[in-house]
Amino acid sequence: MTVALVGAGPGDPGLITVRGLALLRACDAVVYDRLVAPELVDEVPAGAIRLSRELLDQDEINDLLVDLGTQGLAVVRLKGGDPFVFGRGGEEALALAAAGVPFEVVPGISSLAAVPASAGIPVTHRGLSQTVTLSTAHGEDGGEPDYDALARTGGTLVLFMGLGRLDELARGLIDAGLDADTPAAVVSRGTRTDQQVATAPLDAIAEAAVGLRSPALLVVGEVVQLADVLASSRPLLTATR
Amino acid sequence: MTVALVGAGPGDPGLITVRGLALLRACDAVVYDRLVAPELVDEVPAGAIRLSRELLDQDEINDLLVDLGTQGLAVVRLKGGDPFVFGRGGEEALALAAAGVPFEVVPGISSLAAVPASAGIPVTHRGLSQTVTLSTAHGEDGGEPDYDALARTGGTLVLFMGLGRLDELARGLIDAGLDADTPAAVVSRGTRTDQQVATAPLDAIAEAAVGLRSPALLVVGEVVQLADVLASSRPLLTATR
Repeated sequence: MTVALVGAGPGDPGLITVRGLALLRACDAVVYDRLVAPELVDEVPAGAIRLSRELLDQDEINDLLVDLGTQGLAVVRLKGGDPFVFGRGGEEALALAAAGVPFEVVPGISSLAAVPASAGIPVTHRGLSQTVTLSTAHGEDGGEPDYDALARTGGTLVLFMGLGRLDELARGLIDAGLDADTPAAVVSRGTRTDQQVATAPLDAIAEAAVGLRSPALLVVGEVVQLADVLASSRPLLTATR
Repeated sequence: MTVALVGAGPGDPGLITVRGLALLRACDAVVYDRLVAPELVDEVPAGAIRLSRELLDQDEINDLLVDLGTQGLAVVRLKGGDPFVFGRGGEEALALAAAGVPFEVVPGISSLAAVPASAGIPVTHRGLSQTVTLSTAHGEDGGEPDYDALARTGGTLVLFMGLGRLDELARGLIDAGLDADTPAAVVSRGTRTDQQVATAPLDAIAEAAVGLRSPALLVVGEVVQLADVLASSRPLLTATR
């Protein structure tokens, strides 16, 4: 009777919320992102409709959700991370609202804090950082990010990015005033069993991360130095049943 | 045998992770923050030790966790929001690491995205914002925040704050260059049954929020205007059993 935009979390299937899992287990249809854990998709009832969004563009996804919702089905839109943090959940919600389909947003654990955490990096830490800036590695128009603004935040930077742009990003931040020695980390496939982490000063991070796989996050700031001590904090991969 | 630093999420007990709830249900001892949902504390086994941290300072909490952990107990440190996002989880993790006590971090849903979401505000939205800056309403030294840096981010600002400082914060941001008309919202007791939301242009938000209760978040940016359409998206309060 409603469409739930549910955050699946950063990868580990045990990191979905209790409410998100309950909705999955009771749904008539699930529309899921490519990167969500297959264990979660397997939680839907036998006979429920399972649709991957992989081949659909955003408008097609919006139309599909409206279509399923207006048929009176209990629909779960299962999205990686959090629907409202770099997840385009707002676009889906606006489409549902415009069509008069009731919807609910169930937040998820965003990669932007959980992935650094899984590498032993708290994004805030008293005495090191009280500010976190989350951004994509490109600007609003798809061009360069605002390196000056990013370099000035004075706190931790967490950047979604393609690994191919890492060298360019690091140089952009240094040219905008960040110290070349600022601790930096790249976390590849965070919270998954095949997670890998590279740490290095900002001016050497691109070289240190050669060979890592997407998806990946870049973390820049003094908090990265805590990873040396805290790297044992990686959450275990857990079954959800 | 280990201490798990578990994020309880923003208030709604259904927003803890599946893994966090499983650890709670199997623990020997729980040390919990004042603001976590009492329904979650009630999930620990009968006979488990339940300790509120309310009267303890951070050093005392650290010592308590080390003490319980070295006794070989399965300990859950249940923290509001996410342990590593303005949660001082890093300090507890460092104390455990120094004492040789094994620990695990289980991320939680941070208020900083879930509370805006529960008011119908996606912190990012294509065409409106691709950058989010999370901060406290005071600087690293307890003094003024860096208003110039906050005003320059060009994206969404989400600020933890005491409601008493709201007027000062709004004026600080406007004096540093943010437009007085920038959409702003205060979300009080977000995701709880008694949630309240005030929205207004930045120069009028303090007046609009008079009478709201703590804890509260200030959200500033163009994404706030989506709340008019999306405010129906508030997650339901749910039982966890």
